[in-house]
Amino acid sequence: MQKLGKIEEKLKAMGIVLPECPSPVAAYRPASKAGKMIFVSGNTAFAGSELLYQGKVGEKISVEEAYQSARVSAIRCLSCLKSVADLDKVRIVQVSGYVNGAPCFDRHPEVVNGASKLIEAVFGEKGLHARKAIGSGSLPDNASVEIEMIAYAED
Amino acid sequence: MQKLGKIEEKLKAMGIVLPECPSPVAAYRPASKAGKMIFVSGNTAFAGSELLYQGKVGEKISVEEAYQSARVSAIRCLSCLKSVADLDKVRIVQVSGYVNGAPCFDRHPEVVNGASKLIEAVFGEKGLHARKAIGSGSLPDNASVEIEMIAYAED
Amino acid sequence: MQKLGKIEEKLKAMGIVLPECPSPVAAYRPASKAGKMIFVSGNTAFAGSELLYQGKVGEKISVEEAYQSARVSAIRCLSCLKSVADLDKVRIVQVSGYVNGAPCFDRHPEVVNGASKLIEAVFGEKGLHARKAIGSGSLPDNASVEIEMIAYAED
Repeated sequence: MQKLGKIEEKLKAMGIVLPECPSPVAAYRPASKAGKMIFVSGNTAFAGSELLYQGKVGEKISVEEAYQSARVSAIRCLSCLKSVADLDKVRIVQVSGYVNGAPCFDRHPEVVNGASKLIEAVFGEKGLHARKAIGSGSLPDNASVEIEMIAYAED
Repeated sequence: MQKLGKIEEKLKAMGIVLPECPSPVAAYRPASKAGKMIFVSGNTAFAGSELLYQGKVGEKISVEEAYQSARVSAIRCLSCLKSVADLDKVRIVQVSGYVNGAPCFDRHPEVVNGASKLIEAVFGEKGLHARKAIGSGSLPDNASVEIEMIAYAED
Repeated sequence: MQKLGKIEEKLKAMGIVLPECPSPVAAYRPASKAGKMIFVSGNTAFAGSELLYQGKVGEKISVEEAYQSARVSAIRCLSCLKSVADLDKVRIVQVSGYVNGAPCFDRHPEVVNGASKLIEAVFGEKGLHARKAIGSGSLPDNASVEIEMIAYAED
């Protein structure tokens, strides 16, 4: 059995096992390297083939549920990141959160904290990222949240 | 007559001639270099001064039409990219697709494939990119799709 | 009293004093460096604790007001950027504008010009950036515009 790295040990201590890196549904990659920059594809809250949260936040889906949706999406991003990089040798430099909010939804930052707080808890100083929280008009599969990341490979 | 590069030969074989790089309507550039990173501005499906697809995807515009809209927008991105870089010496590392979907539209990945599949067909291994597909609430000129890219200049 | 740099002198001549760098409301940073790339978090048009423009553009908020909203948000981005970099030694390479437009709003480029024209006026050649203008479905605190930037540290 392969020894887990520090980041995966930390995830394990939080009860999180990284899922298999998802297979893209089209002509793109889970993550792509450009020198030391690593672009991670947008992820929604799939657990296997089941999308855990679907529907507009502020209507069908609560802020608390959307927070979990952001958290699960961020975990999926880490699986994607792991497919091209050593999680122990990267910093997370940007997190983008797209919240499928009702037209007047205004609590996006609380939702995207589901991703940001996970990253901070797992990566510590190496997880301090810039961020944007945006309301989408719709999302793939009617997902409630989509999370995207940019990482940086350290020497 | 200038000799076409490999990428433009490939485009030509697919029946695609890159249009003139569009003139930005404001104080910005079609593309901007930052070291080896190249940021390409968001493009919609203009052919000359005519925007080919307008309206909400899932309502006025079908998924098939929106796929074409994404494809044309991606071709415009390549024109922008060419204005600052040699297309034969870049990789496409990220594609972002913003789909002007109806509020419950959920087939964004199929739409953005119009960009991703073009990039893969033209660039091959150098076109394998990370991606996000997001539903916008609206788009400039009521466009159906907007595509944005990040490229990386190889040595 | 600390001597202002060239960029801040230019801002001052335009009547602009950079506000304090805003404290993020969550586990993220105003800006994050990755080598020479600098990712600036998304900002809305806060002046102190007051959000200056709230509501849908094209309904409650006019294009002219939204232009100002983009401008103030861009100034806030510069405060964030200043917290991690010398403004005299950076280029602005990308500006992203998210406009909280009514569903059929179509004048996003005019709105995001509020950010782009400020950046061009202040940074000149070093401010020529790639750009995207997207309609969001909603925004944090019902803001009318959110602006995000990527900068590049020059030698």
